[in-house]
Amino acid sequence: MHALPAYRRILLLTEGHLGVFTSKTAASLLRYRAPEIVGVIDSVAAGRAIAEFIPWSSPVPILPHLDAATALAPDALFIGIAPVGGTLPPAMHTHVRAALDRGLDVVSGLHVFLADDHEFAALAARHGARIFDLRRPPASRCIAEARARTTRCRRILTVGTDCNVGKMVTALELTAAARARGRDARFLATGQTGMMIAGGGVAIDAVVSDFASGAVEQLVLDAAGSEICFVEGQGSIAHPGFSPVTLALLHGACPDALILVHQVGTTRYKARPHHPLPALGQLRDIYERSAGLLHPARIVAVALNSHGQDAAALEAEKQRIQNELGLPAADPIREGCAELLAALV
Amino acid sequence: MHALPAYRRILLLTEGHLGVFTSKTAASLLRYRAPEIVGVIDSVAAGRAIAEFIPWSSPVPILPHLDAATALAPDALFIGIAPVGGTLPPAMHTHVRAALDRGLDVVSGLHVFLADDHEFAALAARHGARIFDLRRPPASRCIAEARARTTRCRRILTVGTDCNVGKMVTALELTAAARARGRDARFLATGQTGMMIAGGGVAIDAVVSDFASGAVEQLVLDAAGSEICFVEGQGSIAHPGFSPVTLALLHGACPDALILVHQVGTTRYKARPHHPLPALGQLRDIYERSAGLLHPARIVAVALNSHGQDAAALEAEKQRIQNELGLPAADPIREGCAELLAALV
Repeated sequence: MHALPAYRRILLLTEGHLGVFTSKTAASLLRYRAPEIVGVIDSVAAGRAIAEFIPWSSPVPILPHLDAATALAPDALFIGIAPVGGTLPPAMHTHVRAALDRGLDVVSGLHVFLADDHEFAALAARHGARIFDLRRPPASRCIAEARARTTRCRRILTVGTDCNVGKMVTALELTAAARARGRDARFLATGQTGMMIAGGGVAIDAVVSDFASGAVEQLVLDAAGSEICFVEGQGSIAHPGFSPVTLALLHGACPDALILVHQVGTTRYKARPHHPLPALGQLRDIYERSAGLLHPARIVAVALNSHGQDAAALEAEKQRIQNELGLPAADPIREGCAELLAALV
Repeated sequence: MHALPAYRRILLLTEGHLGVFTSKTAASLLRYRAPEIVGVIDSVAAGRAIAEFIPWSSPVPILPHLDAATALAPDALFIGIAPVGGTLPPAMHTHVRAALDRGLDVVSGLHVFLADDHEFAALAARHGARIFDLRRPPASRCIAEARARTTRCRRILTVGTDCNVGKMVTALELTAAARARGRDARFLATGQTGMMIAGGGVAIDAVVSDFASGAVEQLVLDAAGSEICFVEGQGSIAHPGFSPVTLALLHGACPDALILVHQVGTTRYKARPHHPLPALGQLRDIYERSAGLLHPARIVAVALNSHGQDAAALEAEKQRIQNELGLPAADPIREGCAELLAALV
């Protein structure tokens, strides 16, 4: 478990990536931590309006370098990208050095750890800054024993038809909606962006496979005092590369119910266009049977991500899901969470 | 992928553990690398006959310390235990130091890496010895893409009802039996003991979960030139702690057929007596459905481990399996592999 300080004046570093897919970390933070984001560092986009890149964002300034951000009195720099390979792009090094030089904490979700860079580590030590590498596995290594099912907290896990379809967003929206209805709901982050938003959690994809379910179990046990927790899903049980991470979530969290997340209009894996997605019915079957080996859980609703699709396409997909699975479906961003929450009761 | 030198005069270190469960590594090496094991280091058991502890072993000497082993002209010391927690017991430190002092390579499958111990590392450097930590994850980190299914090599995976039931032994026995019949068969090691036997492989349980399937895929692609490969299974798809490792094997290797391994007479997890094992039919169902998400594979036979059971118990279990699953079953150690191999044709 990582726990971050309660930063209140965060700078996002996107250097040259703003508006492209790799800056989805920054986009998510601008959606879910808007009051605490004071600016974006990106010399390529500097001076332009953030709304050109991320329409829903509040109007934070885009600045070319750390010097220009002094007046914002930042308390941390968050690396706002998730590139393939997980290394820090060379163009970002200057900005990270400048932040550490000013004693600013740096928070990173990259696979390659910034604190292991001797220059960064030395700068941090000299200026009293901290580096948080969210993908560094937790020091405690425990083997899961299905203890999550003994907690009184209700456990909901989002599962997907693919990666990057909206499992984190669905869990965050459901948490906010449940809280708005007076419920003691908790969001449990299992990926680096979720952790930046929640201020803690565990990057399950970076945990050694023997201890992956155990890390999820510990996350759930730590939240056992809440009334309901929404566990951020990862990957897909049918994904050629990431299925073990998904199973670690199913068996570590022992969920009471599942929400299936699907992107409207997709029939193939995003990153692997030659691999068709399994049929929804086959996916439901394998999710429920895999979960059921330890604790019974049904998929009770489908959360749709209809980004870039029109209302008719969303409506058609809802109808298809009703026909194929007999389940309610809704896009939590466009339509709110009322229907999804109702399915969980 | 680790690849070990072709050691020919191996000492096994069991210090105080000979004959108890944690020395199963040594017991396996004495079964499968007998011609290359020249002695056992164990000051507690020294002077007694190895057959008192491991009935099937060839008569290698048990010696109290490295000094006593000089005449054997050893070329490596293998750590012969797999303790819970995975650290080197304090009583073994002296022996490891003594081995490195003599320039002997040390091979370890412990979770805690011997090469990270400053004293061991310094001794190894000074005396030209090497330390192989088999559980150190491979440097290459690749994400699986179900490429294993494109190989022409026939891929057989052993899967289990629990840990420590005989998945490695079954794969080794099948490999030897197939070779004895003139087939170009390969054993692919996925755990530390299998790696010590095969001289290479990958300790899949130590790989970060995002790359676990990818490490298995690479192992299979490297063996693509063989006619048939037997992949050593790990854990169980229903095991509360280790199921992600099992799924990494199913999705990384894309097996053409599965052999289910079961220990006669067990109805509960060995290490978790309060967890009942799932029914055989439920396990078959989930194994075949999980594999089938990427590549169709059926369980074609059941390998039984009837260690400590009489012939009647073995016969009754074979009958039960025939009744419940309609599959042939045999104990590869007691009955040979003819029936299991026939089921694979």
